[in-house]
Amino acid sequence: MNKPNPLVNVRVVLSHTSHPGNIGAAARAMKTMGLTHLTLINPRLFPDPQAEAMAAGADDVLRNAVVCNSLDEALSGVVFVVGMSARVRDISQEVLPPREAMPILAQHAQQPVALLFGTEMSGLTNDELARCQLMVRIPVNPDFSSLNLAAAVQLVSYELRLAIGEGDCGAPTINPAPAEMVEGYFQQLEKTLVEIEFMNGKHPTKLMQKLRRLYSRARLEAEEINILRGILSLTTDYHGKLKQRVNKNV
Amino acid sequence: MNKPNPLVNVRVVLSHTSHPGNIGAAARAMKTMGLTHLTLINPRLFPDPQAEAMAAGADDVLRNAVVCNSLDEALSGVVFVVGMSARVRDISQEVLPPREAMPILAQHAQQPVALLFGTEMSGLTNDELARCQLMVRIPVNPDFSSLNLAAAVQLVSYELRLAIGEGDCGAPTINPAPAEMVEGYFQQLEKTLVEIEFMNGKHPTKLMQKLRRLYSRARLEAEEINILRGILSLTTDYHGKLKQRVNKNV
Repeated sequence: MNKPNPLVNVRVVLSHTSHPGNIGAAARAMKTMGLTHLTLINPRLFPDPQAEAMAAGADDVLRNAVVCNSLDEALSGVVFVVGMSARVRDISQEVLPPREAMPILAQHAQQPVALLFGTEMSGLTNDELARCQLMVRIPVNPDFSSLNLAAAVQLVSYELRLAIGEGDCGAPTINPAPAEMVEGYFQQLEKTLVEIEFMNGKHPTKLMQKLRRLYSRARLEAEEINILRGILSLTTDYHGKLKQRVNKNV
Repeated sequence: MNKPNPLVNVRVVLSHTSHPGNIGAAARAMKTMGLTHLTLINPRLFPDPQAEAMAAGADDVLRNAVVCNSLDEALSGVVFVVGMSARVRDISQEVLPPREAMPILAQHAQQPVALLFGTEMSGLTNDELARCQLMVRIPVNPDFSSLNLAAAVQLVSYELRLAIGEGDCGAPTINPAPAEMVEGYFQQLEKTLVEIEFMNGKHPTKLMQKLRRLYSRARLEAEEINILRGILSLTTDYHGKLKQRVNKNV
């Protein structure tokens, strides 16, 4: 049996959103991070072509969005509510940054949980605040804290995705070659540098140390070592041929 | 002397951006995280009213944006280039998620560094890729990886802000009251519950354990304890008055 995906239990609740474009952009942001359940409390305009345009390929999130008339309806069945706080307010409620708050939300996401976002202009109302068990605030430039609603949804969804352990970016990683192979390269490099008279073979230590430092930092892979050794071999060959010619002409 | 802010050395470079709205939204995203230097390589339309509209209050970032004709010009003076990779590509370059890549960028940001973003449709060209010392890829839903350009700028700028140690969300924290004060509350609570005959005083342990668990989890603050003890005192008073009346009537 597969482990249930906790993201299916996360409801993103947007309260009284003014701009339909923000609803669409929020849907797109959610979907990029694997969130699908959007709930709207009294949106000013929805459905709307602007929402669809901004959703790009996340039109399924919009299509399945639940439109509610009240906070009670939006939070029905939800066991844990995290509210987004855009401003420092006079509240005694605990406020955490997303990196600390999302692992807590993830813990509770075996059952339905909600991320509650207020309006673009004024954030959450006091009644909405009172329903949150935890507040989250995104660290921002104190001189310009004007985060777009969809940007806030994006950042929090991203942190939630990382919190459930889906932080793998599916990227190729470096596979460093085994030590003896790297060492073989350095031996050939040194031999070559002496041969082409770049080093005199008397005090090669310092220069070789520098070259070792460079290539160690790059963490050479097997294929790269093969390429570099191929270059060295041809360098030696070429140098050998040149020497032969020089000797003939003498 | 103040420590220099490494964010002033970070150049966000957008290459061949198609939609001016994305340039504006990227400027806004940058500024919320404290980034100010925007460089544009051959933008399709710039300056443009759509860019200004999407920048909201970040019009200074747009006004100071440097428009270039070539990658060389955009990267002039830059010592470290991090490229944004939207897709898994056939590259052997190292790719890290933003959480690992941004601390590395921050390390180098004593001197000018760049974050390079390709076009909305196709990302970075091979020539651009070749100029990056490190690639970064945002972990996304593999079934819907369509991150908006400004959303990518937002996430990476956020991680950079956290990487330089500006992850404080300026939030009120809980100040738990000292142990003796919490204990004083539990003593009064138990006494009151016996007095109002909610507990019989014989087996109070189990119930008190549950109540202690609840309040411990909430990490009571001094002011909250004062409120709770005030409620308990009035409960006892009220109960006492009722008893007196009952006794008079008997």
